[in-house]
Amino acid sequence: MNLPSKLIEDAVTEISRLPGIGKKTALRLALHLLKQHEAHTEALALSLTRMRQEIKYCKTCHTISDDEECSICKSHKRDSSTICVVEDIRDVLAIENTNQYNGKYHVLGGVISPIQGIGPEELTIESLVNRILESAKSEPVKEIILALSATMEGDTTAFYLGKRLKETGVSISTIARGIPVGGELEFTDEVTLGRSIMTRINYSQE
Amino acid sequence: MNLPSKLIEDAVTEISRLPGIGKKTALRLALHLLKQHEAHTEALALSLTRMRQEIKYCKTCHTISDDEECSICKSHKRDSSTICVVEDIRDVLAIENTNQYNGKYHVLGGVISPIQGIGPEELTIESLVNRILESAKSEPVKEIILALSATMEGDTTAFYLGKRLKETGVSISTIARGIPVGGELEFTDEVTLGRSIMTRINYSQE
Repeated sequence: MNLPSKLIEDAVTEISRLPGIGKKTALRLALHLLKQHEAHTEALALSLTRMRQEIKYCKTCHTISDDEECSICKSHKRDSSTICVVEDIRDVLAIENTNQYNGKYHVLGGVISPIQGIGPEELTIESLVNRILESAKSEPVKEIILALSATMEGDTTAFYLGKRLKETGVSISTIARGIPVGGELEFTDEVTLGRSIMTRINYSQE
Repeated sequence: MNLPSKLIEDAVTEISRLPGIGKKTALRLALHLLKQHEAHTEALALSLTRMRQEIKYCKTCHTISDDEECSICKSHKRDSSTICVVEDIRDVLAIENTNQYNGKYHVLGGVISPIQGIGPEELTIESLVNRILESAKSEPVKEIILALSATMEGDTTAFYLGKRLKETGVSISTIARGIPVGGELEFTDEVTLGRSIMTRINYSQE
């Protein structure tokens, strides 16, 4: 693309660095901003800069927060004996939306992925171990729920966490893999169906 | 979506004002920026602000430009007797990419659309009329090529321009509507096919 202006070319280059946005979309967005009032672009630029510069991460669970400690970690209504371990803040939001969980969280900041050069040191695993060990003094953590994606990287991370957390003596569980609600048996892939049979739930014991 | 931070909520709101970007995508983009180095976000915000504040429009053809007059209007290699009228700068880029046109351009800044409240006054039509009348003194414009979208709004604008430019006495043409190159007859809609028969090209006269 041969843009007639260096200014718009710079903007297009910067916008197209965002994931999932190509040069054509970036140009469409830039032209849109040019058509809008100048205040619109200023508000966008300011909100991005402020977010990047001023945002804090909760010192306990590492989720995004405006304060030192996030509202979930601060809350006394949430069960401190259970920690749900997730990859990033979007997973926290997804689980919160279910209204099925009343414990605390721990945001890893990613999953172990040798291809992307992410090892256990890049994640907040040490902090999780310390958090569990520290908790023993007051309100001990009893269960760790691993809510990681059902991918190779997610499984690797779950396996590593399982080994790493052994010393703490907490019980470790993982969210169920199985047929999605509304899913039909015949369209479910073999691996999922196989797992859902292996990890079947015994009604009579419930 | 109940975001745990006001800062990220503001950023998501601003990003999702862009066309084609919803709340979920906006959150993904915001989290992406948080994972990148701070300089990345700063460069993005700066390029947007600079583009919006400093960009100029060519005083002759109204395309985006870094100077008072754009490179195409300045060029002596381009044929001044032909002006191609387009909706916005993206159309200029598209036509330039064909390498089939050596005249000048005129960017309308939109098309007439009563639904969106865009009338002829919002577009650069007066400027086009003046440009044609002015040109008579030195290098007269002989032909106006209307390269507008084949939509209701495009056709309305073409019709209006045809009436408005009558007084100037220039010849007015419109780019051909027909079967796209590589298109098959049986899959072409009736309107396009009908138009392509009506506006058929006589080989023997060429």
